[in-house]
Amino acid sequence: MNASSAALFEKFNKLKISAGNHSPSLTTLKAEMPEIEIKVDACFLSNPYATELFLKYFKKELLDTGEINNVLEFYPSQNNEIANLVGRHLQIDPSRIFIGNGATEVIQAIIHHFVKDKLIVNIPTFSPYYSFALPGTEVVYYELKKEDNFRVDPDDYIAFVTKNKPDSLVLINPNNPDGGYIPHQEIIRIIEELSWVPTIIIDESFIHFAFENSSLKLPSIASLLDKYPNVHIVKSMSKDFGIAGIRCGYAILPAEKVTHLLNTGYLWNSSGLAEYFFRLYTRKDFIVEYEEVRKKYITESLFFVTELNRIPKIKVYPTKANFVLVEILNGQTSDEIATELLLNYGIYARNCSDKIGLHGQFIRVATRYKEENEYIISSLRDIFK
Amino acid sequence: MNASSAALFEKFNKLKISAGNHSPSLTTLKAEMPEIEIKVDACFLSNPYATELFLKYFKKELLDTGEINNVLEFYPSQNNEIANLVGRHLQIDPSRIFIGNGATEVIQAIIHHFVKDKLIVNIPTFSPYYSFALPGTEVVYYELKKEDNFRVDPDDYIAFVTKNKPDSLVLINPNNPDGGYIPHQEIIRIIEELSWVPTIIIDESFIHFAFENSSLKLPSIASLLDKYPNVHIVKSMSKDFGIAGIRCGYAILPAEKVTHLLNTGYLWNSSGLAEYFFRLYTRKDFIVEYEEVRKKYITESLFFVTELNRIPKIKVYPTKANFVLVEILNGQTSDEIATELLLNYGIYARNCSDKIGLHGQFIRVATRYKEENEYIISSLRDIFK
Repeated sequence: MNASSAALFEKFNKLKISAGNHSPSLTTLKAEMPEIEIKVDACFLSNPYATELFLKYFKKELLDTGEINNVLEFYPSQNNEIANLVGRHLQIDPSRIFIGNGATEVIQAIIHHFVKDKLIVNIPTFSPYYSFALPGTEVVYYELKKEDNFRVDPDDYIAFVTKNKPDSLVLINPNNPDGGYIPHQEIIRIIEELSWVPTIIIDESFIHFAFENSSLKLPSIASLLDKYPNVHIVKSMSKDFGIAGIRCGYAILPAEKVTHLLNTGYLWNSSGLAEYFFRLYTRKDFIVEYEEVRKKYITESLFFVTELNRIPKIKVYPTKANFVLVEILNGQTSDEIATELLLNYGIYARNCSDKIGLHGQFIRVATRYKEENEYIISSLRDIFK
Repeated sequence: MNASSAALFEKFNKLKISAGNHSPSLTTLKAEMPEIEIKVDACFLSNPYATELFLKYFKKELLDTGEINNVLEFYPSQNNEIANLVGRHLQIDPSRIFIGNGATEVIQAIIHHFVKDKLIVNIPTFSPYYSFALPGTEVVYYELKKEDNFRVDPDDYIAFVTKNKPDSLVLINPNNPDGGYIPHQEIIRIIEELSWVPTIIIDESFIHFAFENSSLKLPSIASLLDKYPNVHIVKSMSKDFGIAGIRCGYAILPAEKVTHLLNTGYLWNSSGLAEYFFRLYTRKDFIVEYEEVRKKYITESLFFVTELNRIPKIKVYPTKANFVLVEILNGQTSDEIATELLLNYGIYARNCSDKIGLHGQFIRVATRYKEENEYIISSLRDIFK
């Protein structure tokens, strides 16, 4: 690293530290480090084709009509109004739907209100699942091993949970940051054998990128919840629909838990644009088009991962999400590689040096547009040649 | 009321009941009751001139440049990043600023985390201050009397609080739904004499419409907070800036309370548009223009209230907010008058029949554009002729 690179690295690192266990947002990065030109944001985990689709509707229905003015000026509908729409769309009792200002609000609500003494979290993981825990909650980590490709082994996991007797556990499926996927039959087996755990949280924020076979049918377990009243589904809309800036998420909870939350808050927690998005999400015309871009993106992501696998001196872990966890095996650190990617190639990847439960040097790289993926591949080839 | 009016009234009432202690949003109303043509939304409490100003910037800076796409697609900055901007703008230590997804989120955070055994709330009031209270909190009501024009009498209030020994109290200034204003010197006296109350919440959501004299200078007490570490300021941006659909609010809290909140949540609780608004709010060019529309709106509101006062068979209570509480004295109920305004005149006013602490028949009417105000006046003259 030369002196100017080192100075930039130090400046970036400061922003990183102030962002805690997360990456500085693109907005923050642009405002604070205008000297960096970001060509590809591979930190951000989102389907860009879905963003395009949303923007097409947004332009036609809100901008061209002037309706955007009302969306910005007036109060949005209340939580239960939007839950009614989403519930009908998902064919799930609307009284079980809790609408959140992004999945992080949903996670916070569940962790603060329904998780009690002991919570089991698999690591590596999405940090809010442990950082949001209140002081009275003991967080017990179940460590996924890189030797096993971060796979959840149902027998071992069930034995661990049984031994620890938690009141709550979290499974992110596919998992963040490794993309590891628990197949449908295995997750059902885990849920059935652990039916005595009061609060089982299944985070399906990346489920739209997963599949069981080449039909690419959405493998969500949401429709089975009537059989498992202790299962709580968390769902971000930011990734699959490419609209992180709008802040949309929801949970499927036991109806009495939704009532509990709404009785003491969460009054107008969706913005006007979030309400527009949720209304769109429940429309057939939109969903038909969305299914096309979902499948297109999965297919492109498969090509991306296949090519990544051919690059020497890195290990690419198996993924069914829209990102890959990459282990650096050429002796360089993830700090060095992430900085090189950012400063020399304009590629913003996630340096995983702060992720607990990762032993080694890891970066996480999101899949993007075909052309962007190709640029990431050629840049990594260049670095690891 | 004829049969078709009665049917509409019943339909509207159902929506009202499902909205709890609030009014159905305009979006919900339009979706569920397309047969009603709303000409003036006088339920909604917002400066329409400020909305116009915001939309001018929004169009120029986000739409015309295409930057809106990034605002919708990417994650916004974290809470503390936005707090830094707002703190610098307000010349208040940024570590004391807590950014919320609308003031209702701020109120929820304070009520859930910092209010303990006993909370004193003045009634009539904005319902979240009591409905968000957790089961362990006793809410004690201090009733403002219509005979006193809902004025807070400092001596009587201080005596009441001293007798009840709460850990928390709320003063909304100006108050909602009556618009009653506690002058600067009186609120400072109350704060000083009640310095032993651990959590004093001052809600200044309507302070931009208040004034001490004809200079119309903003009478906020925010700049004095260093002297009063137990005072917590709540601030909605929806009303003064006319952007309720974006969901923006903040609190000024002791720094350790902000840290407490951010350590266990509130990660990405501002949307991309909320971040854009907060950045705008801290810019001098915007604020110079905003001050003009703020003063213009106050002046128009003064004319509106003056004219309202001349209508017979109603009593208009003194207000320094952007709305008036109107008592109906012709023997009709607020249900009847609100329905007549909505169905016959297309005016959506707030029927206050569900507001606790109001004894009599009351509607709340917001001030809007000059022409809309004139239409409200002529419609009320017509009804009460």
